[in-house]
Amino acid sequence: MIPTGALVYARSHRSRFLADLMEFVRFPSVSAQPKRAGDVRRCSAWLENHLKKVGLEKVKVVPTQRHPVVYAEWLHARGLPTVLIYGHYDVQPPDPLSEWASPPFEPTVRGNNLYGRGACDDKGQLFTHVKAIESFLHVTGRLPVNVKCLFEGEEEIGSPHLTDFIEQNRRALRANFAVMSDTRMLGPNRPSLTYSVRGQLGLEIEVRGPHHDLHSGNFGGAVHDPLQALCEMISQLHDRNGRVAIPGFYDRVRRWSKTERDYMQRTGPPDRQILRDAETEAGWGERGYSLYERVTVRPSLTINGISGGYEGVGGKAIIPSHALAKLSFRLVPDQDPREIEILFHRHIARITPPTVKSIVRTNQLAKPAVIGRRHPALFAAAAAYRKAFGTNPVFLRSGGSIPVVSTFQRVLAIPTVLMGFALPDDRIHAPNEKFHLPNFYKGIETSIWFLWEISRKAKGRSRFHAPYTQTVESMQIN
Amino acid sequence: MIPTGALVYARSHRSRFLADLMEFVRFPSVSAQPKRAGDVRRCSAWLENHLKKVGLEKVKVVPTQRHPVVYAEWLHARGLPTVLIYGHYDVQPPDPLSEWASPPFEPTVRGNNLYGRGACDDKGQLFTHVKAIESFLHVTGRLPVNVKCLFEGEEEIGSPHLTDFIEQNRRALRANFAVMSDTRMLGPNRPSLTYSVRGQLGLEIEVRGPHHDLHSGNFGGAVHDPLQALCEMISQLHDRNGRVAIPGFYDRVRRWSKTERDYMQRTGPPDRQILRDAETEAGWGERGYSLYERVTVRPSLTINGISGGYEGVGGKAIIPSHALAKLSFRLVPDQDPREIEILFHRHIARITPPTVKSIVRTNQLAKPAVIGRRHPALFAAAAAYRKAFGTNPVFLRSGGSIPVVSTFQRVLAIPTVLMGFALPDDRIHAPNEKFHLPNFYKGIETSIWFLWEISRKAKGRSRFHAPYTQTVESMQIN
Repeated sequence: MIPTGALVYARSHRSRFLADLMEFVRFPSVSAQPKRAGDVRRCSAWLENHLKKVGLEKVKVVPTQRHPVVYAEWLHARGLPTVLIYGHYDVQPPDPLSEWASPPFEPTVRGNNLYGRGACDDKGQLFTHVKAIESFLHVTGRLPVNVKCLFEGEEEIGSPHLTDFIEQNRRALRANFAVMSDTRMLGPNRPSLTYSVRGQLGLEIEVRGPHHDLHSGNFGGAVHDPLQALCEMISQLHDRNGRVAIPGFYDRVRRWSKTERDYMQRTGPPDRQILRDAETEAGWGERGYSLYERVTVRPSLTINGISGGYEGVGGKAIIPSHALAKLSFRLVPDQDPREIEILFHRHIARITPPTVKSIVRTNQLAKPAVIGRRHPALFAAAAAYRKAFGTNPVFLRSGGSIPVVSTFQRVLAIPTVLMGFALPDDRIHAPNEKFHLPNFYKGIETSIWFLWEISRKAKGRSRFHAPYTQTVESMQIN
Repeated sequence: MIPTGALVYARSHRSRFLADLMEFVRFPSVSAQPKRAGDVRRCSAWLENHLKKVGLEKVKVVPTQRHPVVYAEWLHARGLPTVLIYGHYDVQPPDPLSEWASPPFEPTVRGNNLYGRGACDDKGQLFTHVKAIESFLHVTGRLPVNVKCLFEGEEEIGSPHLTDFIEQNRRALRANFAVMSDTRMLGPNRPSLTYSVRGQLGLEIEVRGPHHDLHSGNFGGAVHDPLQALCEMISQLHDRNGRVAIPGFYDRVRRWSKTERDYMQRTGPPDRQILRDAETEAGWGERGYSLYERVTVRPSLTINGISGGYEGVGGKAIIPSHALAKLSFRLVPDQDPREIEILFHRHIARITPPTVKSIVRTNQLAKPAVIGRRHPALFAAAAAYRKAFGTNPVFLRSGGSIPVVSTFQRVLAIPTVLMGFALPDDRIHAPNEKFHLPNFYKGIETSIWFLWEISRKAKGRSRFHAPYTQTVESMQIN
């Protein structure tokens, strides 16, 4: 038996699935911007309603201190495994707006792609599972396994309240493993399973100089310019070899075996591919590592934004009173974001010139995570890719951060299958973000096959059965 | 005989003079912002009309390629000197708006001060001469000397078209010397005559990296961040001793005699005064020089603004595609801005990392200028201050730039008397700019005494007569 009914349904309803996704993308659910809080809430209500229509049960919007979580379940596959499906319905800010070919929140199909903020990250990818569920429930009235859906609205701001939510609902969220689609494939015909993500530490440094802006003629040369001081400080965050120059920063970075590095070199993208994906000519960074290693098994520090002084047209003859930089670390096993935060504070205190003051604020924290490549759920996912894409997936490391992966591991004691459908040129977080529509449709089929494979392996009482036998009951979500 | 009538008129019309000034300040004549071009034009028309009402002749608005010049004259003092009165009716941008206690273009009197953008720089100071002229013409129907007024609308953007205008009208603008009020006094009872101004070179550096913003997770560590590169470049513009680190930068900086440095130390503000004026605790800059020397006889480089990447609320995980810095040099005799521009281009080319591209654009150029402290017109100005303020003025150097001073010297072969009424805490170019109203009224009286002193000295055929004997005729302004 194969899931023919669900697959046929999914194929024959592609245009309606796309229309539903466009409705979803239309919400400017930008979690980082307080002015968009209402849009985030409206988006969660729309998603709640949609999950009800799909046939999921106990659908509810659970408020947090900021943006709500949307929960849903279907738990009638007695004795079979429970899969926790995670996704996020919030999106990155769309700036700079002027660089979008079509407005970010007016989803537009051009060629094989759907353009819009969140089309790929993560509304489109989240929807592959929703539509797989719809296909099963519509055709058979049942799912092959038990399913719990957890869709959050704060991923792009570092999931500040998700950990609390998971801890408070640790019994209700019990599952055999989690699955999420928020990562990349190597190319349209090169499906990939991600088995490691980097951690993150988002910070800002404010440098304060004079109490108000000063005339640069009257005071230039006698008062330290906070922008100059900030630049001088930032220039001391990397050494000449592209390494982060904070004392102790590399102390806990895990050294990988030659076997693992060889595997990465065989399966991972070569330098030229990464440069092509970035649409840039020159690589940069830590010597002695490939670009793929630099963005996955090595930590990094990026300056995400700087502002200060006059930024308008023409010039303005001032020494600005303050300057601000936003920056973020990507961390790798076994670095601890809290420890790096302390090292950073110490380093900034050390390099702040006595002529200005500096203040460091933390925006985001997330631990790095790795999943064993031989976990049975990964085998089921690999089989599903093979069926939907006609080819074996490669096992990849991601340079990005998915804080919830380490939370699931720590709080629920379950691994997460990272089954991504994004393409390297989907311009995630950038203007003209898109989702490759063939990946949307194949993603839905992958999810159908995946749920079915899990069920088949569990029923077959194969060696993958063991992890699925624990009883999973429905619990009240708080 | 003394100018009693004019002085009495000036004293009895203070409240109307203030009302006129407030009307003048109400125009947001921001020359740097293209969207304000209409306001600049309306302001010039208002000024034209006002000069006609005052009784000046041949009043006209002369268009340039950008913002117009306002010209007026009164040339009926046969055989007596001609004074070219210069001022500017354009103002600095008012940003950051949120820091203003009252809106920048809604002039507001609080205590002894008039608050508003341009209240001091330079509408209020320009107006001291206009109101002195009004006082003479209303009471006697005559001025003690010949006067030509040249009020420009592009000072705050480096007077890009004024030089052409002066060159094209060099005969019509012939005068014995120029006078302007756009500089500072040391304090409310410490009038000052400025005898040197620094030159200026305003530039911007754009650093370009990837073609579009990249996800800092996917690419962080493998692609050079343009903001980081910009910071690293800016950190190489100064050395550890606070000196500009551009090779050749100091080659033409004039060395002053011990006598001159001693004079500066005696008359100029001590370090603690400059720090108090800046409302900051710590001094900074080139070792071996007082703060007063650092801002007057030593050149400086200030970073006026930086922008790039995400500047909104919260964080955004990107490597930005580009970064921009606005910076300006203050130059001293005998540095040439064109030569420094070339040295800067060379230095930037040398320190731009191969992983990014840099583009340098020039916004402004102005030469430094010095006037001999023993020029007879300075003696007349000193006498006028003594009469109006009851105390001798000190001779000061200014750290600011007044490009027209070197242009008058070069094209018209005349010196400029810098008779300023701004106070150190007037927050020129900053939020809450103000003009100290007692200085407005004493400024008008100083101008009355100044015009009268020039006439008296010329009639007395004193040793100051010689420079005033040349025939000055009215010419058509182009």
